[in-house]
Amino acid sequence: MIETLNKAFCALPGVGKKTAQRFVYHLLERNRDGGFELAKALVDAMEFVKHCSSCRTLSEKTLCAICSNDKRSGAKLCIVETPTDIHAIEQSGAYTGKYFVLSGYLSPIDGISAKDLGLEELQQKLRTEKVEEIILATNATVEGEVTAHYIGNMAKQFNVRITRIAHGIPIGGELEYADINTIAHALSGRKDYD
Amino acid sequence: MIETLNKAFCALPGVGKKTAQRFVYHLLERNRDGGFELAKALVDAMEFVKHCSSCRTLSEKTLCAICSNDKRSGAKLCIVETPTDIHAIEQSGAYTGKYFVLSGYLSPIDGISAKDLGLEELQQKLRTEKVEEIILATNATVEGEVTAHYIGNMAKQFNVRITRIAHGIPIGGELEYADINTIAHALSGRKDYD
Repeated sequence: MIETLNKAFCALPGVGKKTAQRFVYHLLERNRDGGFELAKALVDAMEFVKHCSSCRTLSEKTLCAICSNDKRSGAKLCIVETPTDIHAIEQSGAYTGKYFVLSGYLSPIDGISAKDLGLEELQQKLRTEKVEEIILATNATVEGEVTAHYIGNMAKQFNVRITRIAHGIPIGGELEYADINTIAHALSGRKDYD
Repeated sequence: MIETLNKAFCALPGVGKKTAQRFVYHLLERNRDGGFELAKALVDAMEFVKHCSSCRTLSEKTLCAICSNDKRSGAKLCIVETPTDIHAIEQSGAYTGKYFVLSGYLSPIDGISAKDLGLEELQQKLRTEKVEEIILATNATVEGEVTAHYIGNMAKQFNVRITRIAHGIPIGGELEYADINTIAHALSGRKDYD
């Protein structure tokens, strides 16, 4: 039973044998109520959390809190890889538009095609809704760049402004410690200073 | 629901908001079956795992696998802080005796007394069973040392050899990188070389 729980914890990302063991003993020795609560929360979430029918993020309702919020403008559509990215952008408080979640990136090798990323739904959205700008906010990885490129190309057929979030030296970051790719990006993406 | 699961994961040791979020999204997006399995394993373990009536380790049965194993000698009793420590010692394959689990260390400030550590049961064991040696294998921390000292003193009234596991430079470790306390211990605990 302890062994089964150990293995079940190992299914979590970044959790190995030792960490799993620590979780198990902590719950058994110190916090059995916490264990029961976690089990209940797991079953509830696995059972009832679905995807938002509009932006594809994880949501308990058919329409997520952001999509059903009338105060948020649908003129801007920020395209992200995962629901976690939405959370990160929301934390910054710098965006008031809506989102579209790909749930991954294009990867023909892994069999992840445009269809899996919901690009048909995205096209439908661009065709029928009044979207003025799409912001490509996929990750600054090779896969993220390829995906952004693909979507950017696809969106050209619509009357929409296509932008990509800026890449460069992070705020608070020191040039000395930035990696060469970031520095190259920061240089090529330089802007007029005013 | 997502928020509830997030919070429930935060009950695990060393898991903060970001890690919890990663767990939640991983399970929801990629491994819902794993989520259900984890929930089931949690309920089973929280419900049915108790403590061994003899050595106080976590066990599904009244008597744990080690205590009920006739091939293991009861003449040696290794005293450890947690069930995890048993696992670590068993991995080494260097011990064939039995164990006694304190489930913690003496800490009057936190209200953890000798009774909480099962020292009465330990005395009972020393009085009634044929124990020839107790090995104090509590951690090499201040609390572990205090606990070892206390138990060592208590056991003097019984006709039993009292030993403490050796402390010093870890095998494969380099003197240069050892901390000063470890070096001091390694020097004061030096043995005749043969």
